[in-house]
Amino acid sequence: MPLDERLATKLKIVVLGSAAGGGYPQWNCRCPVCDLAWRRDRRVSARTQSSLAVTADGHHWFLLNASPDLRQQIQSTPALWPGESGRHSPLRGIFLTNGDVDHLAGLLALRERQAFTVFGTAATLKLIEGNSIFRVLDPSLVSMRPLQDGVEIDPGFDLKVTPFFVPGKVPLHEESGAVDIGGIGETTLGLEIRSSTARLVYIPGCAKMSEGILRRVSGADLLLFDGTTYTDDEMVRLGLSNKTAWRMGHMAITGKEGSLRAFGEAGIGRKVYTHINNTNPILIEASPERRAVEMAGWEVAYDGMEIVL
Amino acid sequence: MPLDERLATKLKIVVLGSAAGGGYPQWNCRCPVCDLAWRRDRRVSARTQSSLAVTADGHHWFLLNASPDLRQQIQSTPALWPGESGRHSPLRGIFLTNGDVDHLAGLLALRERQAFTVFGTAATLKLIEGNSIFRVLDPSLVSMRPLQDGVEIDPGFDLKVTPFFVPGKVPLHEESGAVDIGGIGETTLGLEIRSSTARLVYIPGCAKMSEGILRRVSGADLLLFDGTTYTDDEMVRLGLSNKTAWRMGHMAITGKEGSLRAFGEAGIGRKVYTHINNTNPILIEASPERRAVEMAGWEVAYDGMEIVL
Repeated sequence: MPLDERLATKLKIVVLGSAAGGGYPQWNCRCPVCDLAWRRDRRVSARTQSSLAVTADGHHWFLLNASPDLRQQIQSTPALWPGESGRHSPLRGIFLTNGDVDHLAGLLALRERQAFTVFGTAATLKLIEGNSIFRVLDPSLVSMRPLQDGVEIDPGFDLKVTPFFVPGKVPLHEESGAVDIGGIGETTLGLEIRSSTARLVYIPGCAKMSEGILRRVSGADLLLFDGTTYTDDEMVRLGLSNKTAWRMGHMAITGKEGSLRAFGEAGIGRKVYTHINNTNPILIEASPERRAVEMAGWEVAYDGMEIVL
Repeated sequence: MPLDERLATKLKIVVLGSAAGGGYPQWNCRCPVCDLAWRRDRRVSARTQSSLAVTADGHHWFLLNASPDLRQQIQSTPALWPGESGRHSPLRGIFLTNGDVDHLAGLLALRERQAFTVFGTAATLKLIEGNSIFRVLDPSLVSMRPLQDGVEIDPGFDLKVTPFFVPGKVPLHEESGAVDIGGIGETTLGLEIRSSTARLVYIPGCAKMSEGILRRVSGADLLLFDGTTYTDDEMVRLGLSNKTAWRMGHMAITGKEGSLRAFGEAGIGRKVYTHINNTNPILIEASPERRAVEMAGWEVAYDGMEIVL
């Protein structure tokens, strides 16, 4: 088999956006980490909001989440450009892990008479249906397919996707009254993606570790995991928010309940932090915090990062 | 008065985005004009979606429409960056001319505990209220203020804004059954902006000319006008859509009812086409169509264009 063809049958992942909601730097933030980006300090790189593109055949692509920056992300990624005259796209579908704005709003960029499938839990699809603005997606072309906990989906093109519930919370815009944090249900998914060559697990938002998650990621070739904050209280300490990471539905990297410790022995091929908040010092190259996660065997995702498995 | 101060009291306009809905090139389009952009042909420049920023004091800014590309547009415009530590923005408010996705979705980029005012017709504000996703804007910080036909608003900072109804149609996502095109009402606004030094009229969407519009723009220092399509049927001819410009609520540049002819004698200081669709050949430098509008005294807006009046 020629080299090109062998590469074309590998599982390929492109990190379209590696930042959490709001991106990095954040539009109205001059915290110490954002300040470096506004000053164009060379130790940091700007990052758009959380989304991945995956393909197993080198031609047909799926998005894992659709960030508000999707239009810009497609412009930066030649593999996702239209290849044929008239209307065309290599994109075949989008898997949504929750209903947060940073994972959902990119659907509004996918107007203009293109057929594809949106996969999400019934709760997330109901959100889309309940917001009239999403009617710009023509229902005669865009189909919605519900995902269920542990039930494998075959979207074609040598990919199999198994969604699984992880501890989370309802999207910010649906919060009312007392908010249940860390509950396991339709609000928050992880995705296990298999091709004939490799297995990847993607969990951009996770409020806490569980036995089920550890079993799922054990032995995976690649884990892309929630790297929102380094410490649970970093946004509070900076005076930017009154919310801890936990309150936003994310487990911090450090601490007794943090992800560094939780995945220590899981036998994963490559471990990559993504969905990184603008306050997280791992965004700064050679910072003590960046070194600490690297020493523990983690990589830090950046926009345009390509991984071939 | 020092030069800096005199400049600071001028009306300054920055074109954040000069393309129509979907931007240029459009994500799934390989029409002849988009093809040039995908090939990085030097005769064309990529453009983000329709939005302007204006200031009269050089410090406090207002947006005219909030495009889905707003995050990227702010990153490209140093005057809109946060200037002080912690949460900060020079942005004070947003005026919406309609409820189309390309003018509305940017509100989702303005999360993160920032106070500002959203101005729109009651119909447009109702749309925002009816879509739960916009609840990410904290109602204790973001206020909504209805605009009425011909009633001047004083948002402060040496600006006065008079909205006025123009022929249009309801947003795509609110269409149902037979769609009224060219009706004058709450769906579509023009904005007249006055400072102590100058007067600007902004009409990014207009289905047809009227005596009222001509009176409003007569003698203005600057007109930024709907440049969506060059010919009424260009999207149909290219096989990209079954809709004419008229059906989308826009008057073409050319033709008996076109904007070139309509504004011929209006005595306007500068005339600039913006909200330009990806199919419009005026996007191509030195094309016959670009030359034709330039010969008629029009400029073609581009992202980052700055105008000081």
